[in-house]
Amino acid sequence: MAERARARQAVLTKPPGSLGRLERLAITLSAQQQREQPDVDAVRIVIFAGDHGVCAENISAFPQAVTAQMVANFAAGGAAISVLARHLGADLEVINTGTVTAQPLLPGVLDERIGAGTANIAQAPAMTRTQCEAALEIGVRAAARAAQAGIGLFVGGEMGIGNTTSATAVASALLDSDPAALTGPGTGLSPTGVMHKTEVIRRALQRHGQDKDPLHVLASLGGFEINALAGALLGCAQHRIPVLVDGFIVSVAALAACRLQPALRDWLHFAHRSGEPGHSAVLGALDADPLLELDMRLGEGSGAAIAVPLLQAACRLHNQMASFDSAGVSHDS
Amino acid sequence: MAERARARQAVLTKPPGSLGRLERLAITLSAQQQREQPDVDAVRIVIFAGDHGVCAENISAFPQAVTAQMVANFAAGGAAISVLARHLGADLEVINTGTVTAQPLLPGVLDERIGAGTANIAQAPAMTRTQCEAALEIGVRAAARAAQAGIGLFVGGEMGIGNTTSATAVASALLDSDPAALTGPGTGLSPTGVMHKTEVIRRALQRHGQDKDPLHVLASLGGFEINALAGALLGCAQHRIPVLVDGFIVSVAALAACRLQPALRDWLHFAHRSGEPGHSAVLGALDADPLLELDMRLGEGSGAAIAVPLLQAACRLHNQMASFDSAGVSHDS
Repeated sequence: MAERARARQAVLTKPPGSLGRLERLAITLSAQQQREQPDVDAVRIVIFAGDHGVCAENISAFPQAVTAQMVANFAAGGAAISVLARHLGADLEVINTGTVTAQPLLPGVLDERIGAGTANIAQAPAMTRTQCEAALEIGVRAAARAAQAGIGLFVGGEMGIGNTTSATAVASALLDSDPAALTGPGTGLSPTGVMHKTEVIRRALQRHGQDKDPLHVLASLGGFEINALAGALLGCAQHRIPVLVDGFIVSVAALAACRLQPALRDWLHFAHRSGEPGHSAVLGALDADPLLELDMRLGEGSGAAIAVPLLQAACRLHNQMASFDSAGVSHDS
Repeated sequence: MAERARARQAVLTKPPGSLGRLERLAITLSAQQQREQPDVDAVRIVIFAGDHGVCAENISAFPQAVTAQMVANFAAGGAAISVLARHLGADLEVINTGTVTAQPLLPGVLDERIGAGTANIAQAPAMTRTQCEAALEIGVRAAARAAQAGIGLFVGGEMGIGNTTSATAVASALLDSDPAALTGPGTGLSPTGVMHKTEVIRRALQRHGQDKDPLHVLASLGGFEINALAGALLGCAQHRIPVLVDGFIVSVAALAACRLQPALRDWLHFAHRSGEPGHSAVLGALDADPLLELDMRLGEGSGAAIAVPLLQAACRLHNQMASFDSAGVSHDS
């Protein structure tokens, strides 16, 4: 299918290669979807929300209550990703994987709470192995629902105060990297705050970071929403659904998931390079060259949502442009 | 208005600055449009087409007839920009500023031919001063029509076999640069072809390039469509319409127009960094940091069309996101 898509690109009314990455996107999507006319109009965005016990170490600029408050904001339509999903005409599904306090039923929010937040990784494993598997399963089920709905492109997002700390710990363990090289301000820590956060991550790594088995790393250092994302990506690949990966947190989930199953990599597109400093190292390990670099660092899947129109335009161009012959345009033959 | 937009960005439910360039785009668009809620939903794409006498020097990979053939392809809806305009729901206007042969009436194509292509710049000035002013006026009228139609964002595009040669000559003259540093393959010249093209541009510069007056440079080295673009950009600024600048050719027109009126620069957004090597020098001279870098080099306004959704998303986020107070989300105050 990639070969046929490449042949089609060569006869469209444009100098060969002049659509650059858009040509390569169309060819890859055609191969992923096994369709002559790739189609990513049906987009589903799934936000996984969860709390992090490591907030007890004072590693975030925002209070932990914001996780649940933002879940309510997603449901009410006021968050960035809510606005972008409406703008794109995309499905938006929000899954509570484990906020500290239970929430009343909210429209569009699935309650799949595994626990009242994770444990504090500076003192204990984030979760049990059973909880880790339950989190992965939440994501696998989300992917299955997307497949059932005939979705053409999956975007995973996350919300979890403290989750850049957990994600940085996971990345440091998987990349065998000094956390000082990966730790950043998250939602807006001061330089002093970043130094403190680095030390907290270092303590967590000293406690749990020796065993590099991806499931161990996810259970001991991850988060319910991070691990659910890893499961969702694996599930999407099983269902042959291309994934547009958002920023730092989702990329860390992708890295862990690729360690579990390297063939996943073929299903991933990377939307943007986040302002969070650890992102470049994670992208490098995944051999990923993201489409956008707009200095975004919000999470929620927002960077991926911004890149969706690029994939849609690539498909439209591939499917709808005239050929030299049909348009009567001269060219080398 | 920029101050008010900045204040609004600070209370939306996201960490301050976390939408990166999208925040700055919304603030700039708010100031340009003098609106609390900037709105770039009404997009007009205007393609200026014209032929270049310098094609006699064998500087293009495609025959000159392709200019008029592509105008017909725009009208028939099969070109890349036709597909993208439909996808965006944007107006598409095509203006024939001077193809070698006259064309029959085509739907959506305005016939404003100034002549049967320009003269060969390696041997004579591209056009007379009167023709140059007529070309600028074509663009000024296009901007006036856009203003009349209540357009929120203007995209200029071009079609003209040989026009990277003319644009590179204009850029070399305005930047006082060796053409070898700016000349590239255009639609697909071989390295030998690029060397030959460089020599042709060098001859044109020796003949006409000493006088750096922008109108002289446009008349002696430009093209009907390049000069019309310069006029369109100036007209948009007069009507307070923000412009999303496409790739190399349009950026050269923007450079010439900014030399004529430096205040124009405040109305320009830059869509993408083209694969054409001279583009970076032109962008640098305009202090422009484009939104996208996707290795595109098609022209037709296609790179700008691809970037339109970024500006639209920036406006939607600015206009529709909830504030911390309205959403009941905790934050520093």
